[in-house]
Formats: sequence, C-alpha cells, structure tokens
Amino acid sequence: MTQNMGKNRLEAFSDGVIAIIITIMVLEMKVPHDDSLEAIAQLVPVFMSYVLSFLYVAIYWNNHHHMLHTCARVTGGILWANLHLLFWLSLFPFVTGWMGENHFAALPSALYGGVLLAAAIAYWILQQTIIRDQGTESPLKTAIGSDWKGKLSPVMYVLGILSTFLWPSVALAFYAVVALIWLVPDRRIELRFHHTGT
Amino acid sequence: MTQNMGKNRLEAFSDGVIAIIITIMVLEMKVPHDDSLEAIAQLVPVFMSYVLSFLYVAIYWNNHHHMLHTCARVTGGILWANLHLLFWLSLFPFVTGWMGENHFAALPSALYGGVLLAAAIAYWILQQTIIRDQGTESPLKTAIGSDWKGKLSPVMYVLGILSTFLWPSVALAFYAVVALIWLVPDRRIELRFHHTGT
Amino acid sequence: MTQNMGKNRLEAFSDGVIAIIITIMVLEMKVPHDDSLEAIAQLVPVFMSYVLSFLYVAIYWNNHHHMLHTCARVTGGILWANLHLLFWLSLFPFVTGWMGENHFAALPSALYGGVLLAAAIAYWILQQTIIRDQGTESPLKTAIGSDWKGKLSPVMYVLGILSTFLWPSVALAFYAVVALIWLVPDRRIELRFHHTGT
Amino acid sequence: MTQNMGKNRLEAFSDGVIAIIITIMVLEMKVPHDDSLEAIAQLVPVFMSYVLSFLYVAIYWNNHHHMLHTCARVTGGILWANLHLLFWLSLFPFVTGWMGENHFAALPSALYGGVLLAAAIAYWILQQTIIRDQGTESPLKTAIGSDWKGKLSPVMYVLGILSTFLWPSVALAFYAVVALIWLVPDRRIELRFHHTGT
Repeated sequence: MTQNMGKNRLEAFSDGVIAIIITIMVLEMKVPHDDSLEAIAQLVPVFMSYVLSFLYVAIYWNNHHHMLHTCARVTGGILWANLHLLFWLSLFPFVTGWMGENHFAALPSALYGGVLLAAAIAYWILQQTIIRDQGTESPLKTAIGSDWKGKLSPVMYVLGILSTFLWPSVALAFYAVVALIWLVPDRRIELRFHHTGT
Repeated sequence: MTQNMGKNRLEAFSDGVIAIIITIMVLEMKVPHDDSLEAIAQLVPVFMSYVLSFLYVAIYWNNHHHMLHTCARVTGGILWANLHLLFWLSLFPFVTGWMGENHFAALPSALYGGVLLAAAIAYWILQQTIIRDQGTESPLKTAIGSDWKGKLSPVMYVLGILSTFLWPSVALAFYAVVALIWLVPDRRIELRFHHTGT
Repeated sequence: MTQNMGKNRLEAFSDGVIAIIITIMVLEMKVPHDDSLEAIAQLVPVFMSYVLSFLYVAIYWNNHHHMLHTCARVTGGILWANLHLLFWLSLFPFVTGWMGENHFAALPSALYGGVLLAAAIAYWILQQTIIRDQGTESPLKTAIGSDWKGKLSPVMYVLGILSTFLWPSVALAFYAVVALIWLVPDRRIELRFHHTGT
Repeated sequence: MTQNMGKNRLEAFSDGVIAIIITIMVLEMKVPHDDSLEAIAQLVPVFMSYVLSFLYVAIYWNNHHHMLHTCARVTGGILWANLHLLFWLSLFPFVTGWMGENHFAALPSALYGGVLLAAAIAYWILQQTIIRDQGTESPLKTAIGSDWKGKLSPVMYVLGILSTFLWPSVALAFYAVVALIWLVPDRRIELRFHHTGT
C-alpha cells in the first residue's frame, strides 16, 4: 500500500507537469496586436510547430501512462529517471516557440530535434530502470517486445538533426513521421493486459 | 479496476488541462503600466471576451464531467478523441486574447467562432466514440436524447462566423446565446442517473 | 458514491485552479533586466502586493476546503456557485499586478478591493447554496455560527475602497487586516468536526 | 478518515503548486527572436540556472513526499507551515530568471541564495511542526535522525550569499553542492519504512 501510494503520487505529479507543459506551450503563440490576415498568417509556422509538439506531449503522456501501469512500486531510481524525463519535456515549449518563430530555420529545427532525442533517451532510461527493478519476468519487458518504435525513433531524430544543415524542412518531415508512428498507441502493453485480464 | 484507473487518470489529466486553460486565459489581460481610468477602460473588451471564454470552458468542463460519468472504460479511441478536444480548448486563450485586444473586429471574431466550432465538433466526436464503444443500450445515448443543444450550437457558430463579415457585434451575440443555452447544465444525463439511482 | 465522485472532482478542479492562480501571480513580478539594487527595490511594492494576494488565495483555499468538507453532494447550483467564486479568484493575478506596479495608487487599489469584495460575495453565495441544499440541521450552518468574519469582511473592503480616494495606503491597511483576521483558520468548522468525531 | 482526506488534499494541492512552479520556470527562458547561434548562446546561463532550480524543486518535491508520508493528520499549524514553504518555492522562477539573465552577477546570486535559505528554513519549520504534533516517538523524528543535511544546507547557503560579494561564481558552486548532497533521496525515512514494513 505504501508503494502504491507513492506510485499514485508520482503519476499525479507527472500528469500535472505534462498537463502544464501541453497548455503553456500555447503561450508561445503570441497574440498579434493588429487584426489583419497578415498578422495571423505570420503565426502559421508557430501554430504548426505547436500542433507537432502537442502530439508529442500527448504521445508521451499516453505511453507514460501505459508504462507506469505495469509498474508495481516506485524506487528512488524510478523517481529520478521520471524527473529526468519531465525535465526534457519541460523544454518543449521553449524549442517549439523558437522553431516556430523562426519558420523552421536550420538551427532551431536542429535544437528541437536535440530535445526530442534527449526526451527519447530519458524515456528509454526510465523504461530500463523499471524493467531492471521488476527482475526476470518483467511484465513491462514482455509488453514492449522488440520495442522497434523505441529503437527507430532516436535514429530518425538524428537523421532529422543532420538534415537541418542541408534541407531544414526535411527535418520537420522526420519529426512528423515519428509522431505518426507513435500515434498508434502502445497496443503491445494494452493487449497484454487485456489478455491477462488485469 | 484497470479500466477505472485509466478513466480516473483521463479525468484528472483533462481536469488539469482545463483548469490551466481557464486560468492562463487571464494572462492575456495584460496589466497596464499606468494607473489611469483610460488604461483600464481599454481593457473592457478583453475582460468581456475573458468572461465569455471562462463560461465556455466552464461549460465544457461541466458537460465533460457528466459525459465521462456514463463511461465505464477508456479505449484508445476515447483517449485520442479526448486529447483532440483538449487541443481545441487549448486555443481558447489565444483566440480570446486576439478578439479582445482588437475590440471584437471581424477577423478575430470569426477565428474565435472557428475555434468554438472545432471544439464543438471535437466534443461531438468524443461523444460518438463513447456511444459506439458502449454498444446498444448505451447509457450516454439514452442520456443525451435528441441532443438538440449539441445540434443547434454548430449552426449558431457558423451563423456567427458568417455574420462577422457584415456586423461583427452580431457574431458575439450568437456566441453569447449559445453559452447561455448551455449554462443550464446537462440535466438530461443528471436526471437519468438520479432516476436509476446510480 | 456517484455524488462523492462529483464532489472529489469538484475539489480537485478547484484545487487545480487555485494552485495555478497562486503560482502564476508570481509571473506578474517581471524579472528586471539589470542587476542593480534600484531595479530590485522598484519591485518591493509588487512583492508586497504578491504577499498579500498569496495570503488571500491561501485563506480561500483553506476555507473552501473546510466548507466542502461539510458538503455531502454537489448539485448544479453548487457547481456554478463554485465556478463563480473561481472566476473572481482568477482575477487576483491581474489586480495584484496592477496595484503593485502602480505602487498602491488610488484606482488600482480600489479595483483590488472591488475584486476582493466580489470574491467575498461569491464565497457567501456558495456558502448559502450549500446550506440551502443541506436543509434544516445543515452541518455547515451550525459550523459557521454567527459568521462574524464573513459579515465583517465586505464592510472592511467597502471602507478600503472608499478610503482609496483620500488615503490609498489606508485601503491597503484595511485589506491586510481582513487577511490577518482570516489567517486564523475557520476553527468553528474544524472544532465541530472533531467534536462529533467525524 | 477525515484526517487522511485532509492530508490527501494537502498533498494534491502541494503537488499542483510544485508542478506549476517547476514548469513555469521555463517561461523565464525567453524565446529569442532570431535563429543565430549567438542568440541561443546568450541563454546558456539562463539554462544553467534553470537546471539548478529544477533540481532544487525536484528535491523539495521528493523530500516533501517522504515527510508527509510519516504524517498521520493535518493540523492548522501543519497546513500553514506548508503554505509558508510553498510561498518561498513560488519565488524560485523569479530569482532563477534574474540570476540567469544577469549571468550570475553578485546581487542576483545573493538573492537566489536568500530564497534558498528562506525555503530551507520554511522546510525546517514544517518538519518541526509535524514532529511536535506527533509527540514522543514521532516517526518523522526517528526517521530524520541527526538531520545533518538539513543542518548543513543553511550554512552552505549563508557561505554562498557571503561569497557573492567577492567571487559570485563560488556562490553558485555552494548552491550546486547542496543540490548534489540532497540528490541522494532521503533514504533515512525510506529505509525506516521498509524496515517496519509499513
């Protein structure tokens, strides 16, 4: 019971931080002072980068939810691995705003990819920390299976970052494709749990 | 139990996002630097658009609460339909600020109506997703009955958007009337539940 | 159970909104660009108004907590009376920032008092709505007793608002005294509940 | 049950405030308008101060969590001691932004240390309030043992504040060392609870 308590509070805190991140991102879309079509057209790239980041944060929330579901207790390691993930997610509003405001220029797009990459690594560390804690027959390990999405994503981010130096818009395509791949929720874990009737 | 857990977390996350949206909207009402009556009078339209949007977000929170009440489990489809609704709600602070700062000019008022319309459609999609998941004898379907409010609202938004090109202030009247119609909480669902003693 | 659920969600939503209000208020204290003592000294009135408003929001949170404790179910009336209270509380960051930035000038201090007054009235309405719903032998009615604090506060706010036209700093004294009166938590309700062993 | 309810709501409110603090801090890292390397390099000190403050807030959240775990009921004193702690934590975004934007200049670094010191004192007061309420055989008192970290930290903060007048960067080293000391979570309490099987 003690440990479930801890897990609930970890979930609630993570949900709180993620809910705030996803919502304050919209504050980077500054309200223009005049009411012209040009003023609002100027914001289209900011809006597009907002949509992309909203998808990413929503995907992280969803997968985080499924991952913690398999997790019976919260150790110090899990707690800090989770905070480490939240740290990188907290940088999404900044890089989203910078990339959008500069219309997907090379450097901001590369930094955006860098934060995506760091968040993916932090997620992987959290996943490994939970699996190690669960020992052999880890339900999470069984659930993620080959984890091809988790392995493909960092490669795509690196390709995206590298492509910013030649064709910045290609970088954006890489980031968008990864988001689409993940949009299909992590049914591996979901299925396993319906299977075992938990 | 697994599925109730999921529902609780979905509710908590949605509540978090909606609470943040309703509160950061006030940040669009920028504190004036001088203490004159003119400075504060300038903000009256921003305040009025804040009041209208506060009502809308409160109504969405209230109806969302009643809708999820009828919902026994959270599928992937419900989860994403819910995130889709939250996405459009997250744009309320932006369009509220833009409409208020430009004193209900045509284009900002039309965009405001556009976001209202998109949120209404997203709400409808979420409703349909839950009903489809509940199958025949869906408690939500019975509860909403003819759903005349849900059918009237988009029509009113479209009329509001169209009217911005001729008389912007009429648009505002359309949006305000829809808010007033919904202010009466969704008693259909409430009644049904008191009836069945759930 | 249905109704307790509703109450928990109302509490959680109110807590979320109040937590956000109390925290974003600090964003009105703009970070100065230079590192001089003058730059920070300029912010002392903003800081003072922040302290006062932090106290007020904390008091509202605390009393709201005790009041809802006596409340067995959430009706539509209670829900909207609660949202009405949250609306006025959501204006605290704005009026706090305006009063602080203008060094407690007359008009901003009067508006600050006006929002305090409106929040007090909204709190009173919520209290009456709950008492009416509880019918005779309302535990909340017994708990608040003569409610002298609730009756004195609006009088003090009105005196504060009136005094801004002659001596603005006196207004501040009125507002601070009311905060101090309330700082002693609402032991009436607390006592009653320890007494009855609930 | 009444009292556990109160504790849960206190935890939830504190988590909410801490989650918002840790997330809005990133808003002090203003998005630069151009996409040059210089623009982003300018932000490195702001980023570093953000990392430091993120660690501090995360540590407070973690220790607060363990401390409240030992706490069976919430008195008025505990409630206000907790709000007092949240007040000082709420100033972190401001002092973090000021210190970062002025590249760790003397005065902002001293003020940052001052807020760290005030938060440490507030934490100590909350700890003492809980211990006093628990009476003899206080589980929290046994758990914290000699509390050498709690005693060392204020000394380090004072040394940091004093050193700003001679070598500002040394102050930063003091603050960073304290964070590292605390990064090891408060295993004293954790151990005790695993020991007693709670």
